[in-house]
Amino acid sequence: MTLMNRPAAHSAGQSAASALPRGIPEASAQAMVPFVDVARMMQIIHAVGLDEMIRGIAGAIGEDFERWEQFDKVARVASHSEVGVIELMPTSDGTLYGFKYVNGHPGNTAAGLQTVTAFGLLADVATGYPVLLTEMTVLTALRTAAMSALAARHLAPPDARSMAIIGNGAQCEFQARAFAAICGIEEIRLYDIDRSASEKAARNLADQPLRVSIHDSAQEAVEGAQIITTCTADKAYATILTDNMIGAGVHLNAVGGDCPGKTELHRDILHRAGIFVEYTPQTRVEGEIQQLDPAHPVTELWEVIAGTARGRSGPEEITLFDSVGFAIEDFSALRYLSRKARETGFFVPLDLLADPDEPRDLYGMLQRAGGKA
Amino acid sequence: MTLMNRPAAHSAGQSAASALPRGIPEASAQAMVPFVDVARMMQIIHAVGLDEMIRGIAGAIGEDFERWEQFDKVARVASHSEVGVIELMPTSDGTLYGFKYVNGHPGNTAAGLQTVTAFGLLADVATGYPVLLTEMTVLTALRTAAMSALAARHLAPPDARSMAIIGNGAQCEFQARAFAAICGIEEIRLYDIDRSASEKAARNLADQPLRVSIHDSAQEAVEGAQIITTCTADKAYATILTDNMIGAGVHLNAVGGDCPGKTELHRDILHRAGIFVEYTPQTRVEGEIQQLDPAHPVTELWEVIAGTARGRSGPEEITLFDSVGFAIEDFSALRYLSRKARETGFFVPLDLLADPDEPRDLYGMLQRAGGKA
Repeated sequence: MTLMNRPAAHSAGQSAASALPRGIPEASAQAMVPFVDVARMMQIIHAVGLDEMIRGIAGAIGEDFERWEQFDKVARVASHSEVGVIELMPTSDGTLYGFKYVNGHPGNTAAGLQTVTAFGLLADVATGYPVLLTEMTVLTALRTAAMSALAARHLAPPDARSMAIIGNGAQCEFQARAFAAICGIEEIRLYDIDRSASEKAARNLADQPLRVSIHDSAQEAVEGAQIITTCTADKAYATILTDNMIGAGVHLNAVGGDCPGKTELHRDILHRAGIFVEYTPQTRVEGEIQQLDPAHPVTELWEVIAGTARGRSGPEEITLFDSVGFAIEDFSALRYLSRKARETGFFVPLDLLADPDEPRDLYGMLQRAGGKA
Repeated sequence: MTLMNRPAAHSAGQSAASALPRGIPEASAQAMVPFVDVARMMQIIHAVGLDEMIRGIAGAIGEDFERWEQFDKVARVASHSEVGVIELMPTSDGTLYGFKYVNGHPGNTAAGLQTVTAFGLLADVATGYPVLLTEMTVLTALRTAAMSALAARHLAPPDARSMAIIGNGAQCEFQARAFAAICGIEEIRLYDIDRSASEKAARNLADQPLRVSIHDSAQEAVEGAQIITTCTADKAYATILTDNMIGAGVHLNAVGGDCPGKTELHRDILHRAGIFVEYTPQTRVEGEIQQLDPAHPVTELWEVIAGTARGRSGPEEITLFDSVGFAIEDFSALRYLSRKARETGFFVPLDLLADPDEPRDLYGMLQRAGGKA
């Protein structure tokens, strides 16, 4: 029941915990939680390099998916309202505990706000003490793109070089960069109902070694693309792609349909595709497959990565990664970030935890603070 | 689907949200979340006064318990390990969303760490944007004590002036102060298996208008006390109180038994008592009543506060508040704190949210940050 039982992994320097003094702790160090704010997150990304960061997060997700069965898995805890959703996504591997707070509010954009904002935390399972608090709006964009590209590396035709992206909002360019860095994509075909979004994405990607084109319809954008990414934001049963638009051998990366009542693909497509998901109980409720019978067969992606299930069956198969985002991906991103924050030094100590000299004397700490004031 | 649908309550100045500019937001203000760290929490408490703060939180809990049915209620999401538990406790009233992160690690004390640490957040349901982040280790101590005293005001004999406290750890003095401030308790009788804990509590309470005594056994401590508070930390089926120690008319405030496998009272006591709980589905799993048949009758406290159920039936009844802590209490404390933080100015802006000038241009924001660096 004491810290003598701390798992050995903690002394191996793999978690942020090892950035803090161990043994009988100093009061000041224990009270402080390393915090990565938005400015420092961007500094870390620029110090590491965006491609390297996306590859690093994909690598961490891959490692964690291979040890999938070690994790506590629960469907996210969602609080829905008429205009959006607020979710908590916790998980643990028994040594570290992580969770993310994330909202999804499609109407925010019209008010100059982000559709999705997020922050997250890693904690030491042995003590319950947080070891990292971080913004995750930017980090979630990176991990979502990294997850998509990692899935495509296992599911898409290996010679895919062209990707269509339907929905050119905040996630779009990160998807493009991830598929270039991880899958060798060379061409990006953009479509959005708001052309200015496509123009924004094309402008942002202009310095990349990518052929980028803007199209007048989803139909036109998907022509010749071996991979089709959908990342639209409307909370509705939408039909971004219809059955006739999807040819043999295409890989579909469906990112935007991720909560009850929010889908992007016509259900006829689903009946023709090999469907891969993150965590089946969650995807049945939140993913494209909410349109299907609950018994419709799907494969969990971790099994493909771990080698216990088959990915793409051949060049003619339509594969679908029905992505909704799962807590383990955030855990992987947090774990990776924690290492990079320490390596780059881009974090600040946050006075988040009360830490009296004598742990049972919380009241005395409060009293003495008043005496000092 | 836009902010035009924002609930009217937000313009009434009742939430922390109104501390932030509304309408089309400024980039910098939207990116910043008011943060109350441990030092500022203590400043707020000293500025407001501990008694007033406890009464204020009890008042906020009372208001929220009266409108109990407006809240989203879920049992907390707990991640258990051999040495402790990490929990997320979310709730929402449809206008504000709140959650608390809290751990419970009895072995921490031996390593100089807090058994319980916590932090929490309030967010605007209309946008999903956080409006307050705060330490909650100290705030939880206050809200737990406020909740206990509020329950006792409805359940304990109205002429109770003497309280025994079994378990004199971090929560002890806050309980004493709350029962003095809210229930008119004048005498505190302390017992702990570690006498130095009782001595610490007695020292800390020496400046209060309370008669404080230290006892050699729980049996001795409870003699003549009309209220008995148990707040021990061991994660075990313990028997802090046995049946013979509990006389007619006593009110039991059982604070420490709050997770599966952690109880404080002998089950014979439970069979003699009128049992009051916060949220039945959670207490069946976590409270003293985990020792009883799931059909054993209990009363939810909010019904007593709202006047739809009876509290104490008469001077001979043994009443038990089987307290485990529920998310709505934290929500009430956060709501109250948010007001006090604004009134006292004791908070700092935290750069927690990415806020690009154009919300769909997260990537562009990142790119430009690199250009600036």
